[in-house]
Amino acid sequence: MRIGVLGTGVVGQMLGGKLVAVGHEVRLGARSTTNQKAADWARGVGARASHGTFAEAARFGEVLLNCTAGSNSLEALASAGADNLADRILIDVANPLDFSRGMPPTLTVCNTDSLGEQIQRAFPATRVVKALNTVNAAVMIEPSSVAGAHDLFICGNDAEAKRAVTAWLREWFGWQIVHDVGDITAARGTEMILPIWIRLMLTLGTPRFNFHIQR
Amino acid sequence: MRIGVLGTGVVGQMLGGKLVAVGHEVRLGARSTTNQKAADWARGVGARASHGTFAEAARFGEVLLNCTAGSNSLEALASAGADNLADRILIDVANPLDFSRGMPPTLTVCNTDSLGEQIQRAFPATRVVKALNTVNAAVMIEPSSVAGAHDLFICGNDAEAKRAVTAWLREWFGWQIVHDVGDITAARGTEMILPIWIRLMLTLGTPRFNFHIQR
Repeated sequence: MRIGVLGTGVVGQMLGGKLVAVGHEVRLGARSTTNQKAADWARGVGARASHGTFAEAARFGEVLLNCTAGSNSLEALASAGADNLADRILIDVANPLDFSRGMPPTLTVCNTDSLGEQIQRAFPATRVVKALNTVNAAVMIEPSSVAGAHDLFICGNDAEAKRAVTAWLREWFGWQIVHDVGDITAARGTEMILPIWIRLMLTLGTPRFNFHIQR
Repeated sequence: MRIGVLGTGVVGQMLGGKLVAVGHEVRLGARSTTNQKAADWARGVGARASHGTFAEAARFGEVLLNCTAGSNSLEALASAGADNLADRILIDVANPLDFSRGMPPTLTVCNTDSLGEQIQRAFPATRVVKALNTVNAAVMIEPSSVAGAHDLFICGNDAEAKRAVTAWLREWFGWQIVHDVGDITAARGTEMILPIWIRLMLTLGTPRFNFHIQR
């Protein structure tokens, strides 16, 4: 499968590297074709890895992952181009974190809106599925690095897209428990997990943990 | 122990009833001494249960539980009287939910502030410990009604008060895993769990569930 990963930070690089490792072709998208991190990543990962602009990555991918910083996501996706995003499934991994006031960060949008909704409104022809944003990058790509059963939350307006993403999350990374928590407005809930996630990271002294729903 | 429970809703009645059942004296506080729900509760629970105004419940309790609706908590606590709350441990169970726009509710305060912080600022001589607000009332008083290990999150500025509350949660209700997630500003995190909690309640079709942190 050809996958476009938008964003060259730790999340984009780790997801992209894992996707190549499990047999996919990945193009990492950046603001420019001369982005050094993207070039280094593609050279390091080797065959089946390439890089380019956000638009080039979007055109390349049959499915897209938004791994940009939440504060830049709308701008990055606009640069990718609405036409290149149309009809694609976009897995939105980003969180609208604002570190400008220091730690812990606040959210740039929450409660009555969310980044997931902002993206879906800005790109109505794109099938946005919010997923993976509630775990650390190392846990995203290797859920077995956390002991025992633990869960992901996904949401979005397109039921077929959510089913496809649920299957990919299992196939690509080994995710066993994925709760569909509703339409894209449920992204308010999954993004608002971040404040407790950050407190727990500080308390537990590790980002390698996750939530499991017990009944 | 003498315990003052502020608020006559389901949470106050269930917590108060359980506390009487495990041997404590409980006074349920309401806006007025003629509150019918409080009078019915006290008569139904029987010996060791009484009711009165918020101020009477606060004066009665060696420890206090805020079980008022979050939208009314500051007003109810003001009615209880800062002097009656001074030096007391106040376990703040409330969530700042706003149902005025229908389901799912939004929060009246979040992200850069929280109800827990508002209460601590308004009553600086009170030892506020945020706890129990992330589970349903039935789970609060009977954590064994959810299968397997599952967790509570508490926070507050007074370490000794948090240690006391942690011991009481175990003794009163059987809570085994209580994460101290920091000072009272961490109430932003525990209150912001509510949006995903509500989505999960709708998805799972039951309020009888809880989070467990896996590492």
